Amino acid sequence: MHTKEVIEAKRDGGTNSLEQLRHIASGAADGSISDHLLSAWLMACFLKGLAPREAADLTLAMAESGERLDLHGIPRPWLDKHSTGGVGDKTTLVVLPILAACGITVVKMSGRGLGITGGTVDKLESVPGFRVDLSPQEMLAQAGRIGIALTGQTPRLAPADKTLYRLRDETATVESVPLITASILSKKIAGGAEAVVFDVKCGSGAFMKTEHDARELATLLRQVGEIAGLRVQTLVTDMDQPLGRMVGNLLEVQEAVRVLSGGGDPRFIELCTELAGAGLALVERGGTQEAKHALESGAALAKCEEWFLAQGADWDTFMDGKVPLAPEVKVVTAPRSGWVARLDAGIVGEAALALGAGRVSPGAAIDPGVGIEILAPVGTEVAEGDALFRVFSRQRDKAIENSLLTAVEIQETAVEASAVILSPT
Amino acid sequence: MHTKEVIEAKRDGGTNSLEQLRHIASGAADGSISDHLLSAWLMACFLKGLAPREAADLTLAMAESGERLDLHGIPRPWLDKHSTGGVGDKTTLVVLPILAACGITVVKMSGRGLGITGGTVDKLESVPGFRVDLSPQEMLAQAGRIGIALTGQTPRLAPADKTLYRLRDETATVESVPLITASILSKKIAGGAEAVVFDVKCGSGAFMKTEHDARELATLLRQVGEIAGLRVQTLVTDMDQPLGRMVGNLLEVQEAVRVLSGGGDPRFIELCTELAGAGLALVERGGTQEAKHALESGAALAKCEEWFLAQGADWDTFMDGKVPLAPEVKVVTAPRSGWVARLDAGIVGEAALALGAGRVSPGAAIDPGVGIEILAPVGTEVAEGDALFRVFSRQRDKAIENSLLTAVEIQETAVEASAVILSPT
Repeated sequence: MHTKEVIEAKRDGGTNSLEQLRHIASGAADGSISDHLLSAWLMACFLKGLAPREAADLTLAMAESGERLDLHGIPRPWLDKHSTGGVGDKTTLVVLPILAACGITVVKMSGRGLGITGGTVDKLESVPGFRVDLSPQEMLAQAGRIGIALTGQTPRLAPADKTLYRLRDETATVESVPLITASILSKKIAGGAEAVVFDVKCGSGAFMKTEHDARELATLLRQVGEIAGLRVQTLVTDMDQPLGRMVGNLLEVQEAVRVLSGGGDPRFIELCTELAGAGLALVERGGTQEAKHALESGAALAKCEEWFLAQGADWDTFMDGKVPLAPEVKVVTAPRSGWVARLDAGIVGEAALALGAGRVSPGAAIDPGVGIEILAPVGTEVAEGDALFRVFSRQRDKAIENSLLTAVEIQETAVEASAVILSPT
Repeated sequence: MHTKEVIEAKRDGGTNSLEQLRHIASGAADGSISDHLLSAWLMACFLKGLAPREAADLTLAMAESGERLDLHGIPRPWLDKHSTGGVGDKTTLVVLPILAACGITVVKMSGRGLGITGGTVDKLESVPGFRVDLSPQEMLAQAGRIGIALTGQTPRLAPADKTLYRLRDETATVESVPLITASILSKKIAGGAEAVVFDVKCGSGAFMKTEHDARELATLLRQVGEIAGLRVQTLVTDMDQPLGRMVGNLLEVQEAVRVLSGGGDPRFIELCTELAGAGLALVERGGTQEAKHALESGAALAKCEEWFLAQGADWDTFMDGKVPLAPEVKVVTAPRSGWVARLDAGIVGEAALALGAGRVSPGAAIDPGVGIEILAPVGTEVAEGDALFRVFSRQRDKAIENSLLTAVEIQETAVEASAVILSPT
């Protein structure tokens, strides 16, 4: 097959066949198609779009481009959970134990953080001993035994995505909903998923800035997933303000365990139980009520401990608060009285990145102990001088504290807390 | 400047600035921008287009990307002639001597043939001794002395075009009228041109298959040329049947000299005098009448001899018919009586290519002595068994003879000879 003909067909607004998309995906995976041909094809896809059937074919072709994880042999139902990423998003750490406590098997591959978006793998690594490099055999054995296993992404699954994503990043072709959909779903399918619940985030701290774009992605994830043979549920959720109260790696694991222990931010708890409930409904094992019960009964916390221990974490040291946060703690206070009307997730994410909680380029080191505690989420009434943020750093940086103030808008009239779930479907 | 931002602007249908286009052109010329970024940008240009002002900026940026030929010091007016290429197109060999005989200075860089499209440089090389590798100094000295110099393309002029053309060829982004325009005009400007007369060919033997597309290119060549500071005239001409009676390198030089000597195909003579006349009018030195006079008076033939001798050709050997054609000569005859209604230039071009008159890939060798003589152009009345073609080859190939028959359509009712000039502007 001639790559040029595949490009031509897409350039002219036609549909690429499954055979053509397999040619592209295998060529991207094994390097037999040059970057410049792939980039021309990607720009043509960006500008001409892909129909849902075509995006599903691309998804399957990419999923086939490398190794696949075979979950057969571990108990069903299997469920995966995926977030499109945001600031303070430690949802996985709560949702997975809830699901496993409800009898679901969750085998999940998670990424590392990049830019303002944190990564679950980085967060878990802030717990001493926690291993995120499980082999496929270890993953399957652990999931079979306790119902949860989580590891870092392997480049051997859907390797076409690795090449195509790098080129999209360089050639300004990232923001294509069908290409995003195929990228996400191909990795899920290669990882053996049969059912996935998606948390599609929108707002200043998310990849999708508007509810319109987030709904478009959610719709296509469902359509394409269904064509590709996956059961998919999506929730479109708010990422205009950071999720929960903590932004930073160790801080976020602590917050997740606090929620599993019965405390924590109600808005974040709502998101966790709704997501877990949607997942349970997707595999016909209950819904939000069952999720809430698993959380409130302590079953999810027990499952979390089991999980952490299975992956080598020093649970007791962590639970005893002996893992140190960054030592320099400063409070940022309200410049005037009123109600917090806005708390910009993008700006808070940038501040956490500047503290060292995230990385600008892949592979860079992060500082697990730094971060930001949010003391006054949207809807809080504050008096001048009240604490808005607590900043954990190695060394005080006034510029970061000042930048945090630009994230906050205080108005004179009362403001309601904002909804976390924007769409139930 | 970030290349990604230039791609993004074009991707979103915006206009690239002169500064952005200079970034692209210099990066293409010196290799500092990767092929995959250039290819994504080219596809965005292909699909989103370039405004005439933008195409002119790209033209200028590409012209600036390497060395430039400075014609100052040789007599004005300077005029260049360019054909978009076709089958049997030896027009340059007649038009240049006419122009020079009328007191115009013509400094021309010509290409080699590729596919069914012949190249003037290949044709001239069929004459023993003819040098097509003049240095810039030799070019300028000769043009100053006799009014004509012609040499092969140098990669040092507009090197951005070399990179971009290669990528366009590979990524299915050749057929973009603004990109074609910038490619053609940038080389003209880098070659020092101030005024250019274009022969925009259309039909089965041309790059532009339809009159609509050819007119679009002609219009953009004039618009963009004017913005870029060139005087431009265009003729849209027929390439549905081969031009003149000969297709093949030595055969075409022989035909051109026959026309300069007062004989030859009237349709081909019309094209030559109209093109030369349009060029003379463009630089305000006359028109078609002056061109005809230069041809009919023998002044153009004398100029041709001067030109060939200046570039080292063995004129006497050539004129005495001592340069051998391929020895195997076969005649293809009409399968029935009637009028020739069609003589497909694309098919004749393919047959000449198969004989060895052209090359499939750049750099391949060609056979100067092979080719096809057309004995019955469109409008000719033929009887069954009359000769349609004379084929000059090294070794008889019946398949080529049979393929030539598919180029010809003979109908029972009389057919007029077809017009060669489709548009006077």
